[in-house]
Amino acid sequence: MFIDKLIDRIISTKNHCIVGIDPHEEIIPKRIMDDYCDLSVAKSESMGNIIFHMSKEIIDNIYDIVPCIKPQIAFFEKYGSHGIKAFENVCYYAKEKGLIVIADVKRGDIGSTAKAYSDYYLGNKDTSISVDAITVNPYLGKDSIEPFVINCVDNGKGLFILVKTSNKSSSDIQDRICDGKRIYEIVSDLIIGLEEKSMGKNGYSSIGAVVGGTHKEEGEHMRKIMGRTYFLVPGFGAQGAKASDLAGFFNDDGLGAIINSSRGILGAYKSEKYKNQSFADAARNAAIDMRDEINKELYKTGKIAW
Amino acid sequence: MFIDKLIDRIISTKNHCIVGIDPHEEIIPKRIMDDYCDLSVAKSESMGNIIFHMSKEIIDNIYDIVPCIKPQIAFFEKYGSHGIKAFENVCYYAKEKGLIVIADVKRGDIGSTAKAYSDYYLGNKDTSISVDAITVNPYLGKDSIEPFVINCVDNGKGLFILVKTSNKSSSDIQDRICDGKRIYEIVSDLIIGLEEKSMGKNGYSSIGAVVGGTHKEEGEHMRKIMGRTYFLVPGFGAQGAKASDLAGFFNDDGLGAIINSSRGILGAYKSEKYKNQSFADAARNAAIDMRDEINKELYKTGKIAW
Repeated sequence: MFIDKLIDRIISTKNHCIVGIDPHEEIIPKRIMDDYCDLSVAKSESMGNIIFHMSKEIIDNIYDIVPCIKPQIAFFEKYGSHGIKAFENVCYYAKEKGLIVIADVKRGDIGSTAKAYSDYYLGNKDTSISVDAITVNPYLGKDSIEPFVINCVDNGKGLFILVKTSNKSSSDIQDRICDGKRIYEIVSDLIIGLEEKSMGKNGYSSIGAVVGGTHKEEGEHMRKIMGRTYFLVPGFGAQGAKASDLAGFFNDDGLGAIINSSRGILGAYKSEKYKNQSFADAARNAAIDMRDEINKELYKTGKIAW
Repeated sequence: MFIDKLIDRIISTKNHCIVGIDPHEEIIPKRIMDDYCDLSVAKSESMGNIIFHMSKEIIDNIYDIVPCIKPQIAFFEKYGSHGIKAFENVCYYAKEKGLIVIADVKRGDIGSTAKAYSDYYLGNKDTSISVDAITVNPYLGKDSIEPFVINCVDNGKGLFILVKTSNKSSSDIQDRICDGKRIYEIVSDLIIGLEEKSMGKNGYSSIGAVVGGTHKEEGEHMRKIMGRTYFLVPGFGAQGAKASDLAGFFNDDGLGAIINSSRGILGAYKSEKYKNQSFADAARNAAIDMRDEINKELYKTGKIAW
């Protein structure tokens, strides 16, 4: 079951942090760009190859210290079929290295369309990519989530449903109050209603929630009402969430949240702190520093899982 | 500008109906499956080729009578990079044939991630697929929509933002009432606030709305408050919306809505009505019958655009 595999990896690496693989053009190291740029093919094919090698180099340098990666498909889809080929290869390579893979795809559709997405990402067919979990968007309601839940249960996969996202405009829809409940609380209720179907041996469900780290109070509130839901927490670093904001996203057992950093790791070599280090070394050291920062906060609050 | 090109095609074909290219495995004709199945390659590669040829045959048989197609990416993405290659080829082929192409992708993300999607679908870069318009999901709020709006304005493209979807569970989130307004009305307000940026010569905006044809009353209500917004209306046929439900989705000028049918056209050859016809003939005749049904309803209510 997804959630138990994730928790096992978190405990064995002693790390609640995950690395977001967002190979944005602006942070591709010049060396990788030069080594893999191929002017004899279409630019999208060349870029697909470049972002695969950039992602592979990150994986090679963090797979033994982090539990999980979260590749963001948009940065691959940007290069069409060649980008998706790179995405498939990145996911495959990461799983070979023992990492849990959460594909950040935020899909959402209805009926047979949702089933088509679900069969590709969470299926066990010979045409499936078969990552461990994906993110999904709840705007279309419960029947749009069900085809994903079915594959989670049948194939031991996981879901993270968008509850409260890390961006400023998340308040436009998600914070609206209806009959005394915010929209994101209504989505939480929907998740709580699904969790029995996929409860793991550690008391957490494989149907998780995305809760932005930039919303400290909302995260603490959600933690109280969603005790058995694992949170995928974006927003650390570049978007503004600090380690000291995040202890409240965890339960007293020291579990309950994975904290994502994308640009803070992949772009570490461009920052003041790691500026004399190679792309790979800077990424590894930024991942170690982030792990230690989060663990220190949890230690302070007595929330220790190991 | 997208919306004017769309309206020109609607008027020249005298047709408000668009064909949803949803190459679901269950409706692939046996002949096409046999002709293009290639056991020497991976199943996803073979399936990518099969669904391209199925889609091409539909396009060849309807391009002169319908204004627009709406390929649903999930049925292509299901086959990974090979499916996306087929999707790119379908969009390219349809545009070569003079059709407007609305990619039904329902993407939604934030910041540079949303920009990556936007640059692929609505960009003018050498790595863009560059369809005419896409569908997007508003759950993440205004700042998640902006990167798409920028490319619409800069490159003459279009958007259809999910307002009220055709499925039953659309009520879970979209119908919730906050301060006297339903969530889908709050999304409508967001769209109305964007429309000035992309107003065409016919008085309609390139920033449109998805409003399910299965919700007759809501559609008529939305029509009144969103006078200058074009509606993309799914739900005709298989999902239950009838022509007589849809006149209220149009303005008095006989414009304002495009009605989608996917399985009703692609799967027509399997229905009682067209059962002795080939896949191609049944699709064409179903598209003609649908066009005539909608036009007849508009004629009855005096909403005539030509």
